[in-house]
Amino acid sequence: MVIDPPYLIFLGDVPDALAAKTGLGIVDWRPEWCIGQLRLEGCRADAKIPDLSIEAAVAQGVKTMVVGSVNAGGVLPPHWINSIVAALDAGLNVATGLHTRLASIPEIAAAAARSGAQLHDVRFSDQRFDTGKGTKRPGLRCLTVGTDCSVGKKYTALALEREMRSRGMDADFRATGQTGVFISGRGAAIDAVAADFISGAVEWIAPAADPNHWDLVEGQGSLFHPSFAGVSLGLLHGAQADAFVVCHEPTRTTMRGVEHGLPSIRDVIDLTRACGSLTNPAIACTGIAVNTQELGEAEARTLLQELAREYAVPATDPIRFGVNELVDRLQSVYGK
Amino acid sequence: MVIDPPYLIFLGDVPDALAAKTGLGIVDWRPEWCIGQLRLEGCRADAKIPDLSIEAAVAQGVKTMVVGSVNAGGVLPPHWINSIVAALDAGLNVATGLHTRLASIPEIAAAAARSGAQLHDVRFSDQRFDTGKGTKRPGLRCLTVGTDCSVGKKYTALALEREMRSRGMDADFRATGQTGVFISGRGAAIDAVAADFISGAVEWIAPAADPNHWDLVEGQGSLFHPSFAGVSLGLLHGAQADAFVVCHEPTRTTMRGVEHGLPSIRDVIDLTRACGSLTNPAIACTGIAVNTQELGEAEARTLLQELAREYAVPATDPIRFGVNELVDRLQSVYGK
Repeated sequence: MVIDPPYLIFLGDVPDALAAKTGLGIVDWRPEWCIGQLRLEGCRADAKIPDLSIEAAVAQGVKTMVVGSVNAGGVLPPHWINSIVAALDAGLNVATGLHTRLASIPEIAAAAARSGAQLHDVRFSDQRFDTGKGTKRPGLRCLTVGTDCSVGKKYTALALEREMRSRGMDADFRATGQTGVFISGRGAAIDAVAADFISGAVEWIAPAADPNHWDLVEGQGSLFHPSFAGVSLGLLHGAQADAFVVCHEPTRTTMRGVEHGLPSIRDVIDLTRACGSLTNPAIACTGIAVNTQELGEAEARTLLQELAREYAVPATDPIRFGVNELVDRLQSVYGK
Repeated sequence: MVIDPPYLIFLGDVPDALAAKTGLGIVDWRPEWCIGQLRLEGCRADAKIPDLSIEAAVAQGVKTMVVGSVNAGGVLPPHWINSIVAALDAGLNVATGLHTRLASIPEIAAAAARSGAQLHDVRFSDQRFDTGKGTKRPGLRCLTVGTDCSVGKKYTALALEREMRSRGMDADFRATGQTGVFISGRGAAIDAVAADFISGAVEWIAPAADPNHWDLVEGQGSLFHPSFAGVSLGLLHGAQADAFVVCHEPTRTTMRGVEHGLPSIRDVIDLTRACGSLTNPAIACTGIAVNTQELGEAEARTLLQELAREYAVPATDPIRFGVNELVDRLQSVYGK
């Protein structure tokens, strides 16, 4: 899936910033692509970019309106349809990550047919992939893996991309989830791909590249999550990760949505190396990224020092302390 | 997906028995459900059951016509459409495992609408599953796993079911692939399920049961196959296997469709136990099933003896020597 920037971020009339998380994330990571926001009366989220009408957005070169909010249930509220139809009639493409397919709504399907604009349903994967081949391809890849879901895998991969690019390194974030697809303008929501094509989809997402090029591949789930481990394993095999960073949230007691306790970071390193060696025998853990927001600063620093010592790799909180050390390590190990 | 027996097996006009493999497999394992076959002029496959017209099949109580042949490419040959329309008009449901959705063919969609009969596209999974929870459920489950794809996992699970039932044990084959779904009348082609729902689908396929009940769960792929390992891992977690049997083909040098060599049986046992313990800490390997068709009988017996000694579990070729020893082991270990 390829989504053309620049974007107009549609936030609807959601009651808080949390409901606009996707839109705010796109603005955070791709401010240069986000020309403006479109908000309906009563909207309590604000991406702090110019409020633009559809007409003004078109005049400023916007190509795609991204629905960056969700309401409860992930369906499209009927009173958002007019804005989507207006965007299509003005020639914009429209992209959403909602559970409703845009084309399933007759007014929207008709408007897209009239204007020839594209509809992107990021949560659905209509693209046909090949099955993964596992044949080693050129280019370097760093995958973020986790002790659980929602422990900062996307954020860490994006932070690595930003830091690498600031150092002049050739690096691309590679999206495997819907928000990531909006942020990179390309990718696939890997959890929606038919099970046989997980690793093949990742081979497409992070294709053969220059030997000095880094892909920062967004991880999903955890090899230890009883709901989603299959996704994580296919992703690992497809990524052919040279390096991986383990993401962790130290205060969580059970994995998201299930009754299982979290694995140790050691468990995750060992199983990731054991399984990842199938498609890249040189796979290595190069860092640990901890979400320390529940800890005080001193406590966080102590924990990170302990983890760095125990696992002999840099450990940081990407949000609190940045990812400099993680990139230092990649540069020193891989020389590029 | 639930498909109502009894069946009329439609074989079309395929040039050989291989193209009718699905239909012949159903007749092998569920002769009591297969009232007759319907063949077009020139058909070179024969399931050795009565040739029946659609009218005769209806008169004998058939509920579903199963398309048991494929042509090259897995699409529906246009000259088979008339037979499918006639079956629907006669009130039969129609099931296929082809790559073409039945309802995508206007004449078939119209006939189904007229008669109210059901269309089953086993290769597609339209059913909504929950994500897997990994919570231990009652009942015993034996999963067949493999060193590769196509090494006898379905056959072994079906042979275990047959032997257990012949001993009066309470046992059900649980299908995770399309031929298996026809054979059991229920299940899902797990490779077509959206990646997030692999383990959840298996929790539905092999649900909570009486503590003395055995599910024989059909495995897919291999934890060591770079294309499909994600499917295999989600299946393992969803099955919560108490016992597993490793299936193997000793003369194969590379895994199907890729350049990778086969893992050892030891590798498969170790990784299956390590990963399977997430949802069932008591998981154990209880046997090895080898496809010895490329070996002479003495050579096959020697190999099986060596494997049984090396791994301290029974080793057999289910086709050549049956699965008695495998069931003996399950009865002695689990007492039921």
